[in-house]
Amino acid sequence: VLSLTTQRARRYLFLGQTSRHDQIISAAASIIANKGYSRTSLQEIADKVKLRKQSLYHYFKSKAQIFYEILHVVISEGLQNITRIRELPIDPAEKLRRVIYWHAYEFYLHENRMKVYIQGKWDVLGGKCRRELRSLERQYDGTYCDILQEGVASGTFRADLDVHVVEFVLVGIIYHMAKWYSPQGRLTIDQIVDNYVALLFKGLLTPESQESLGTKGLGS
Amino acid sequence: VLSLTTQRARRYLFLGQTSRHDQIISAAASIIANKGYSRTSLQEIADKVKLRKQSLYHYFKSKAQIFYEILHVVISEGLQNITRIRELPIDPAEKLRRVIYWHAYEFYLHENRMKVYIQGKWDVLGGKCRRELRSLERQYDGTYCDILQEGVASGTFRADLDVHVVEFVLVGIIYHMAKWYSPQGRLTIDQIVDNYVALLFKGLLTPESQESLGTKGLGS
Repeated sequence: VLSLTTQRARRYLFLGQTSRHDQIISAAASIIANKGYSRTSLQEIADKVKLRKQSLYHYFKSKAQIFYEILHVVISEGLQNITRIRELPIDPAEKLRRVIYWHAYEFYLHENRMKVYIQGKWDVLGGKCRRELRSLERQYDGTYCDILQEGVASGTFRADLDVHVVEFVLVGIIYHMAKWYSPQGRLTIDQIVDNYVALLFKGLLTPESQESLGTKGLGS
Repeated sequence: VLSLTTQRARRYLFLGQTSRHDQIISAAASIIANKGYSRTSLQEIADKVKLRKQSLYHYFKSKAQIFYEILHVVISEGLQNITRIRELPIDPAEKLRRVIYWHAYEFYLHENRMKVYIQGKWDVLGGKCRRELRSLERQYDGTYCDILQEGVASGTFRADLDVHVVEFVLVGIIYHMAKWYSPQGRLTIDQIVDNYVALLFKGLLTPESQESLGTKGLGS
């Protein structure tokens, strides 16, 4: 988990200061996450980044384009991360643990844009944009299922569960955090994810792989 | 599961024909589920139930009131059901299994109103309405946690998991069905719930209670 945060910190260091483009995305995400897309105006976004509305058009041609960029960055970074995890030379159970941690940490690191993403409401976008996002989402789901299927093939995960339902369960648990998670809450993000792993891995892993992973495999 | 459906059927029989009030609620739910609240007009709702818009005002004074009624029926029926299950003289694991089945079956029986509920967007309602719904929701969550806590106290459920996180996991899995479930999908609702129970009960139940419940406790 620390290594994910460090990787991200390194990337920011490499980029130097956050670009104006990213500032706008981030400001827009914080407003849309709280008020919803339809009640957010370009003027508010401009005010938040201390730009005139006319100058905002230099970066984005419409509110819908900013919205699309928020959704795109969430799903494309997600796809990049899960693809990287799938390719790691580690046990499928360890891959899955990393996916769950990474996914939950997104709420800790990027609460607003995650909330915007989970709100849905893609109907304000054009058909081409929606299709692009759906295609990335399908690739994300497919990569997640690859990891689960790899675990079934290697005897790490139980073979009698439907891989797609399991993937929906794992994603649904994270999405629901949009409704209840708060960084100021009673539990840290690590404690929350430890509970997820402890609850889910017993049902997901075969008895043999639970033995070989020991307590490590149960998140405790 | 069949008994839930039958209970419901009996209630409908008892009521005789669906009232005009319920027809409006149901028509509005199907439109709002697909187009969202802000893009749904009272005129469309009136058209769908073959009433003039003026006659609609006889039943509801505004679009917001119809919206509130949809949300209220979802959460109040939910609370009624989970409270009834909590009071049954059965094992906590069996109670939990019934709660999960009932909750998932809501998607099968009332897909539209469930989707409207899960969309959120309560900010269009007045503060008093929102507080009432939140209060019912808190009672629902509290009753769910009561069942989990009863299971921990009786040694049926593991004591090392956070009861509130477990409740969020269980609710989140159902809510996510708004995004992927279709009655025309590859799996029946029973197959889907069997997967949930098989995945979750191994992590939730103590080894002793798993033995005593046998395969029955694992949803297979």
